[in-house]
Amino acid sequence: MSKITLLIHCPDTSGIIAHVTSFFYKKQGNIIYIDQYVDVENTVFFMRLECEFNAETNISATKEEFKETVAEKYNMSWEMYSDNTLPRMAVFVSKYDHCLYDILSRYKSNELKVFIPLIISNHKDLEQVAQNFGIPFHHIPVTAQTKEKAAEIQLELLQKEKVDFIVLARYMQIIPKSLIACFPNRIINIHHSFLPAFAGAKPYHLAYKRGVKIIGATSHYVTEELDAGPIIEQDITRISHSHSIKDLILKGRDLEKIVLAKGVKYHIERKTLVFNNKTIVFI
Amino acid sequence: MSKITLLIHCPDTSGIIAHVTSFFYKKQGNIIYIDQYVDVENTVFFMRLECEFNAETNISATKEEFKETVAEKYNMSWEMYSDNTLPRMAVFVSKYDHCLYDILSRYKSNELKVFIPLIISNHKDLEQVAQNFGIPFHHIPVTAQTKEKAAEIQLELLQKEKVDFIVLARYMQIIPKSLIACFPNRIINIHHSFLPAFAGAKPYHLAYKRGVKIIGATSHYVTEELDAGPIIEQDITRISHSHSIKDLILKGRDLEKIVLAKGVKYHIERKTLVFNNKTIVFI
Amino acid sequence: MSKITLLIHCPDTSGIIAHVTSFFYKKQGNIIYIDQYVDVENTVFFMRLECEFNAETNISATKEEFKETVAEKYNMSWEMYSDNTLPRMAVFVSKYDHCLYDILSRYKSNELKVFIPLIISNHKDLEQVAQNFGIPFHHIPVTAQTKEKAAEIQLELLQKEKVDFIVLARYMQIIPKSLIACFPNRIINIHHSFLPAFAGAKPYHLAYKRGVKIIGATSHYVTEELDAGPIIEQDITRISHSHSIKDLILKGRDLEKIVLAKGVKYHIERKTLVFNNKTIVFI
Amino acid sequence: MSKITLLIHCPDTSGIIAHVTSFFYKKQGNIIYIDQYVDVENTVFFMRLECEFNAETNISATKEEFKETVAEKYNMSWEMYSDNTLPRMAVFVSKYDHCLYDILSRYKSNELKVFIPLIISNHKDLEQVAQNFGIPFHHIPVTAQTKEKAAEIQLELLQKEKVDFIVLARYMQIIPKSLIACFPNRIINIHHSFLPAFAGAKPYHLAYKRGVKIIGATSHYVTEELDAGPIIEQDITRISHSHSIKDLILKGRDLEKIVLAKGVKYHIERKTLVFNNKTIVFI
Repeated sequence: MSKITLLIHCPDTSGIIAHVTSFFYKKQGNIIYIDQYVDVENTVFFMRLECEFNAETNISATKEEFKETVAEKYNMSWEMYSDNTLPRMAVFVSKYDHCLYDILSRYKSNELKVFIPLIISNHKDLEQVAQNFGIPFHHIPVTAQTKEKAAEIQLELLQKEKVDFIVLARYMQIIPKSLIACFPNRIINIHHSFLPAFAGAKPYHLAYKRGVKIIGATSHYVTEELDAGPIIEQDITRISHSHSIKDLILKGRDLEKIVLAKGVKYHIERKTLVFNNKTIVFI
Repeated sequence: MSKITLLIHCPDTSGIIAHVTSFFYKKQGNIIYIDQYVDVENTVFFMRLECEFNAETNISATKEEFKETVAEKYNMSWEMYSDNTLPRMAVFVSKYDHCLYDILSRYKSNELKVFIPLIISNHKDLEQVAQNFGIPFHHIPVTAQTKEKAAEIQLELLQKEKVDFIVLARYMQIIPKSLIACFPNRIINIHHSFLPAFAGAKPYHLAYKRGVKIIGATSHYVTEELDAGPIIEQDITRISHSHSIKDLILKGRDLEKIVLAKGVKYHIERKTLVFNNKTIVFI
Repeated sequence: MSKITLLIHCPDTSGIIAHVTSFFYKKQGNIIYIDQYVDVENTVFFMRLECEFNAETNISATKEEFKETVAEKYNMSWEMYSDNTLPRMAVFVSKYDHCLYDILSRYKSNELKVFIPLIISNHKDLEQVAQNFGIPFHHIPVTAQTKEKAAEIQLELLQKEKVDFIVLARYMQIIPKSLIACFPNRIINIHHSFLPAFAGAKPYHLAYKRGVKIIGATSHYVTEELDAGPIIEQDITRISHSHSIKDLILKGRDLEKIVLAKGVKYHIERKTLVFNNKTIVFI
Repeated sequence: MSKITLLIHCPDTSGIIAHVTSFFYKKQGNIIYIDQYVDVENTVFFMRLECEFNAETNISATKEEFKETVAEKYNMSWEMYSDNTLPRMAVFVSKYDHCLYDILSRYKSNELKVFIPLIISNHKDLEQVAQNFGIPFHHIPVTAQTKEKAAEIQLELLQKEKVDFIVLARYMQIIPKSLIACFPNRIINIHHSFLPAFAGAKPYHLAYKRGVKIIGATSHYVTEELDAGPIIEQDITRISHSHSIKDLILKGRDLEKIVLAKGVKYHIERKTLVFNNKTIVFI
C-alpha cells in the first residue's frame, strides 16, 4: 500500500480533470481525494489529488510518466509526493515558550507527520524545553551587526539538516531576504493579529487602543514585505472592554498556538498552494 | 450559456471520476465544480458536479445519454438538474414569525433561487405577513380529530402547486406519515437545539435546566422518527448562568433563522445527498 | 412596578459602589443588575445598574435626589432612564434591503423596545418595504451639491419626530459633521469589515484581494473620522480561496444584519458607555 | 499590597450589595471586581468580589469580622481567599497525553496560578512526560478487583499532599463515590462531547453515527451520576460528512485541551459557584 499526493496549477481549459483522473485510473490507483478550484479572474486551474495504490509505487517513474503524458500537455506547475518520506521542519524561537510547547507536544503525540532535526534560537531561554523533548537546540545570537552572519550560520545548519521548511514559533526577529530567497513559501510565521489589521509590532497594544471586540491570529508564509505574505489560516476570539493588554496577550496565546498548528499541519500534509500572494488551502 | 448540476451515489470502484468527467469533456462542457466523497465503511461513492456549456443544453437528451453511457455502467443513483427551472417551495408556519420574516426577506432580496407559490398555516396569525410579501396564504386548522383530513387538504394544495419541497418554519405540528411519504428527504425542519441533545418539546427549558453553556439549532430532513432525521446544518451560541429561559428563546431566534436559511439554501442549490440517515453536504 | 437604569462614569475612588447601592437600598429598590469597570490607566470608574421598585417611581425626583446626594459628591457623568418611555429611532437606508428587512422584522416581532417614527433614504427603492411594514418613508436625495441642504431637511425631520438616535442600515452616504454634532455617539453605523482592517470603500473587494480567511462586520458610533468611531460589536465568518467577491458580499449580509442588530439592541437597552473613543458594553 | 476574593450565595433580599461593599470600604479596600447574579426562580443571590488592600491583610481576622458583621445577618454560604497561597492541584491521567501536555505547558509558562504536587495514573505510559516536566508521578493500577483499594491509596496520597482539587485529564476510569465524597465540586473532568448529547463511552463514534455537523467538549464537576455534573465550560468545532471517526478524535483533541484548561483556570481563580447542579461562572 502506498499513497501519492499531487498538487497542480496551470492555465484553465477543459479536459484537465478527465486527463488527470484517467492517468491514475490506468495505473490502477484509487483516487481517495480530489478537489479543484478555478481562479476565474486569472483563468488558472488548481487541483489537489490523493491516490492510493495496492503495491509500492516508483515515485520517480510515476513523475516522469505524468510529466510526459499529462503535465507538459497542459503546461502545468506541479508537485508530486510519496507518503514514505517525512518532510523535515526547523523551528525558530526566541523567548516565548507557548507555541514551542504546543508544536513539540503535537510532535511527540504523533499528530504532526514530520521530522524536526533542530530548533534554532537567538536566546538560550528555551534550551531546556528543547532538551526535555530531545531535540537538538542551536543558539545563534542575532544583533544589528551580526544579522547577515547569523543568517549564514542558520542557512548552513538548515542545509546540513536537509530542512524542507521553517516554522517561526514567535521568533521575534525579521528574517533576512537571503534566507527567504532560499525558502520561498516555505517559512511559516504566526502573527498575533487578524491581518491586515495591526501588522508590525505590538498588535495587542494597538488592538487595545482601538477598542476592538475581537482579536485574532494569522499564520502566513513569509515574504519580503513584513506581515504581508500569503495567509494560510486565521482565527479570532472575543474580548470586551474589561480585558487589559495583559489579558489580550494571555487570551492570544491559545489563538496563536491553534492557528500556527493548523498552518503547519496544512503545509505538512501538502494542502497549500500559493498563487498571486494568496493561498489555496484544500481542506 | 447553460449549467447542469449532477448528484451521484453508487458502489465505489476506481474509474468513476475519470468516466464522468470525460463524459462532460466530450460534450464540450466546462466543469466549474467537482467534489466527491467515499464512505469507506459502506464503500459508497458520492459526487457533485457543476458543468457549464456555451450553448443551451437539451437536458432530456443529456440525461438519456448519461444514463446509457455512464450511469448504468456504475449502477448509479443520480439526479441531473438544469439551471433554467426554479424549484418550488412551500412554507409551513404556526404563530412564530421570525423564521418566516427571515425566509421571505431573503426571497424578496433574490438570495434564494426558488419560487414560493404558497404558505400554509394552522393559525391565522401570520396571514398579514404573507400578504405584505405578496404570497398566497392558506389557513388549514389542525386538531387531534382533523389531523388526517388536514394532511389531505395540504397534500392536494401542494400537488396543485407542483411543490418540490416543504420548509417547516417553526410549524409546531407533527407531520403525518402520509405527507412525509410523499416528500422523502424533501421536508426541512428547524429544531431549536443542537440535536441529538434536547430532542422533542421545549428544548430551551431543558437546556436551562441542565445548565449548558452553549445552545444550538439544527435544520434536518423530516423522517418518521421525531427530530431524528438527517442533519443538514447546525450552529450554536454561547450562554451563561445569567440568561433566563426567556433570554435563551430570544438568543435562539437568530440561530434558528440562520440555520434554517442555510439548510434551505443548500437544498435549493442541490448541495445535499442523503444516505443512511446522514447528509453529505457539498459546500 | 417600575425600573430605573443608571449609567455612570467618574474619577475612580473607593466607596462609590457602596454609596450608589446604599442610595437605592434606602429607596426600597431591588438591584437586579450591577456591573462596574475601572479603567486603571485613566483611573476612571464606570458602572451600570438596574433597579426595580414595587411602586411607580418619580424619575425627576429620583434624578434630583441622586444628583444631590451621590453624583455631585463623586463628580459623576451620569444618565438615568425610566423604563416607561421608549427611545425613538430613525433608520437611514439607500438601496440595500437586507439590514432594513432585518431591523423591521425584529421591530414587528417586538424584539426591539423602541419606536421608529420614520425611515429616511436618498433613493426611492425601499419605499415599498417601509410601506409594507407601515413606517413613514422620506425620500431626501443627496448630491454633492445638495449635501448640506439635505442634512438640514433631515435634521428638521429628526427634531420634529423627537428622534433620540439614528441607525445607518447600509446608508451609503457620509454623514455631514453638522448632523454628527447633533447626535454625538447617537448614530450607529454598520461597516462591512472587521475594523480597523479595510476601512473605507469596498471592503469585500479588499478582503478578497488580500486573501484573508475570515471576513467581518463592525457596528460603531459615527464620529467625524470615517470608520474610526467607537466599536460597539463585531463578528466574523470563515471564508476560503473558493469564495468569489460575490460570495463574500452574500455571506457578509448575514453578518451585517446580526452585528448591526446587536449594536442597536445594546444602545436601546442603555448598555453602552463611550469614553476615549472606546465603548464599555455592559452585557 | 494584597488581594482578597470573596464568593457568596444566600437568600435574595435587598441591601446585600450595599452591606458587602460598605464592609470593604470601611476597611479601606478598593473593590476591583464585583459581579452578582440573582436566581429569580429560587430567590438566591450570588456574588463574587475582588478587593485590593495597600497593606497586608490578616485573612483570619477579616473572615471573622465578615462573618459576624455581614455573613450571619444574611445567612450566607461564603468563601474568602487570600492571594498569597496557591491552590494545590492533582492531575489524573491514563494513556492519552494531549491534555497532560497542555496542562503542564501552561503550568510551566506560569499561566496557571497553582501548585501541582503530583500526577496519578493507572498506567505507566505517561511517566516520562511527568518526569520531563519535573512532577512526581504515581502509578496506581486499577482493576475491577482493586478499585476500592486503589481509591484508598489515591486518597492517602491526596491528603498527604494537601490537594485542594483534582483534574481528570482524560483519566479513563470512573471515580468511586468514596473519592467524590471527599472532593465535592472539586473534581474537574473533561468529557469529549457537548453534553448532554453523547454522555458515556465513545462519544465520537456516536457523533459520527448520528451525522452531526458540530462536535463539542465539556468540562464539568464530577458527581455520582456519570457525565451529569455541573457544566463549567463547553466549546465546539465544525465537522462535515467527510470526517472519519479518526478525524473527529483528532479534531476533538484541541477542543478537549482548551475546554479543560478553561474549566481549570476558572476553578483556580475562584470564579465558579455551584448551585442546584449548575455552575455560576463569573467571568
